[in-house]
Amino acid sequence: MRGWLWAGCVVLVLGSSCGPRSSTPPRGGSAAAPSLPSWNEGPAKAAIQRFVANVTTLGDPGYVPTAERIAVFDNDGTLWAEQPVYFQVQFALDRVKALAPQHPEWRTKEPFNHLLAGDMKAFLAGGEHAVLAVVAAAHSGLTTDEFAAAVHDWLRTARHPKTGRPYTSMVYQPMLELLDYLRANGFKTFIVSGGGVEFMRAFADSVYGIPPEQVIGSQGKLRYEMRDGKPVLFKLPEVQFVDDGPGKPAGIQNFIGRRPIAAFGNSDGDREMLEWTWAGTGARLALLVHHTDADREWAYDRDSPVGRLDKALDEAQSSGWTVVDMKTDWKQVFTPR
Amino acid sequence: MRGWLWAGCVVLVLGSSCGPRSSTPPRGGSAAAPSLPSWNEGPAKAAIQRFVANVTTLGDPGYVPTAERIAVFDNDGTLWAEQPVYFQVQFALDRVKALAPQHPEWRTKEPFNHLLAGDMKAFLAGGEHAVLAVVAAAHSGLTTDEFAAAVHDWLRTARHPKTGRPYTSMVYQPMLELLDYLRANGFKTFIVSGGGVEFMRAFADSVYGIPPEQVIGSQGKLRYEMRDGKPVLFKLPEVQFVDDGPGKPAGIQNFIGRRPIAAFGNSDGDREMLEWTWAGTGARLALLVHHTDADREWAYDRDSPVGRLDKALDEAQSSGWTVVDMKTDWKQVFTPR
Repeated sequence: MRGWLWAGCVVLVLGSSCGPRSSTPPRGGSAAAPSLPSWNEGPAKAAIQRFVANVTTLGDPGYVPTAERIAVFDNDGTLWAEQPVYFQVQFALDRVKALAPQHPEWRTKEPFNHLLAGDMKAFLAGGEHAVLAVVAAAHSGLTTDEFAAAVHDWLRTARHPKTGRPYTSMVYQPMLELLDYLRANGFKTFIVSGGGVEFMRAFADSVYGIPPEQVIGSQGKLRYEMRDGKPVLFKLPEVQFVDDGPGKPAGIQNFIGRRPIAAFGNSDGDREMLEWTWAGTGARLALLVHHTDADREWAYDRDSPVGRLDKALDEAQSSGWTVVDMKTDWKQVFTPR
Repeated sequence: MRGWLWAGCVVLVLGSSCGPRSSTPPRGGSAAAPSLPSWNEGPAKAAIQRFVANVTTLGDPGYVPTAERIAVFDNDGTLWAEQPVYFQVQFALDRVKALAPQHPEWRTKEPFNHLLAGDMKAFLAGGEHAVLAVVAAAHSGLTTDEFAAAVHDWLRTARHPKTGRPYTSMVYQPMLELLDYLRANGFKTFIVSGGGVEFMRAFADSVYGIPPEQVIGSQGKLRYEMRDGKPVLFKLPEVQFVDDGPGKPAGIQNFIGRRPIAAFGNSDGDREMLEWTWAGTGARLALLVHHTDADREWAYDRDSPVGRLDKALDEAQSSGWTVVDMKTDWKQVFTPR
């Protein structure tokens, strides 16, 4: 499974959205005095608080001016869950099923025929190619406005197979509090994720309080064209940039142009981002969320096909990064229903 | 000349910078009550003020919430001058000359040999290929930190051939006032330019008050690698994204993820950006700076190899965009020495 899921993640890059945004304040925390109520006392919470105190205290050797307080967050497995399959992969599978009536040719065309017949075994036997075909079909061939509408529709109606929750309720309450806490301390919070940028923008503002211009993700190519005298941006099935692994520091440089002072991730795809952040001068925070809670969420790391955490966990130990033990560090995992 | 200059512009994409930034407030205007003192009364100034009044007045049908007040500015020819050659091309030529001692092979290698011998006629006879070779040599083969240092050095020491000013003093005072005025009215100001993103970030914050994360430009590929145990981003001579013409709306979508409500340009390379901005619903401002002042700056438009303004000027007239006549609309062109 690892191969196709990873490929699915990497190539889930063709997201796109625009148009008016909700500016609903993010959930969690208090606007007046954000704190970390869902975090148990322990080394992880202490490391976060110590770091924030250092960089915000004038006269402290670790003090950092507000403009340089850049914090970057992975999304899948760091801000929201990613099991049993990256949610954007589920979106692609659902979307192809929804589009089937307009594509009668799919009934006899691999791998769409297997997916539409509900034969997941035959579909997955197609491996990476099968997933890529579905992902490409789900993420291209429409304008950025149409794609944003499709993601919004899916988020409104789809439910997680295990919890029955809307996917936007599969977000981590402690991480929402952390976002609020950092912003209240003058940080600018960014998402830096392997997920498709336009997929994430459909909910990042309303769910995380992160506006579209602070969401960095994998990207497909766009073609500018006129339709009925109006310009549109049409989503092509070609990858422009993969924001994963070593692509994350490159994406940070290309989009933000400054090195973050704090980075948050959960898998090997975040290793280089944490390394790049950690290697800067002055006070730094590099933090990994370790999924250790099979009861309240999932427990997985070195052998998981989704969100594998192996080399980055070794590097966290050798470098002194902060590792969150979800089971002991978090009072609560998901946002209240 | 048009071919190579245009190619030079398009491929001047390999800029990169990071590290601590100056947070000097931008020059021009007053922090307390920014206005437009260097703008003469006339249709251009009136259009700007009317637009800003519309989008900031609660209850006005054109009212736009602060988060959606996105304004995008071209750089070359819009915020600073671009004659007799794009300043970044001059940087590339100067840099190759400075690097020559470390490259003895250039003494006999075309097109470097002609450039180093001062034979511009022979150099330009090499056309696009010659310029591309010099641009690639100047913008790659070093880390992002090294490149930023090289640009800073050049900006500190280089002088414009006609005015003798530092290039960062070749910026337009009325446009600095406009940036301040928009920000004082809740706008977030972005650069969206065909120039290299890392080249522009070297001065955008200190000169324009635009932080690195609000600078969008053409980009080269970066390679993440370890050197002496420290990660670096190494600039490759490969283009990742060209932020010009139809690339501008695509860049806006990929980097900002919302449609601007105001766009400022000066050439055909800005046409699609203005079109995309103008086509949104609600109050909009699309403005072209027309270079009409041969005495105080330069006069050029439809036939200029640099910053050609032809189709966009036609579209401005047919669509009702605002056109700034530099000669009559601006009391002063450049910032005070």
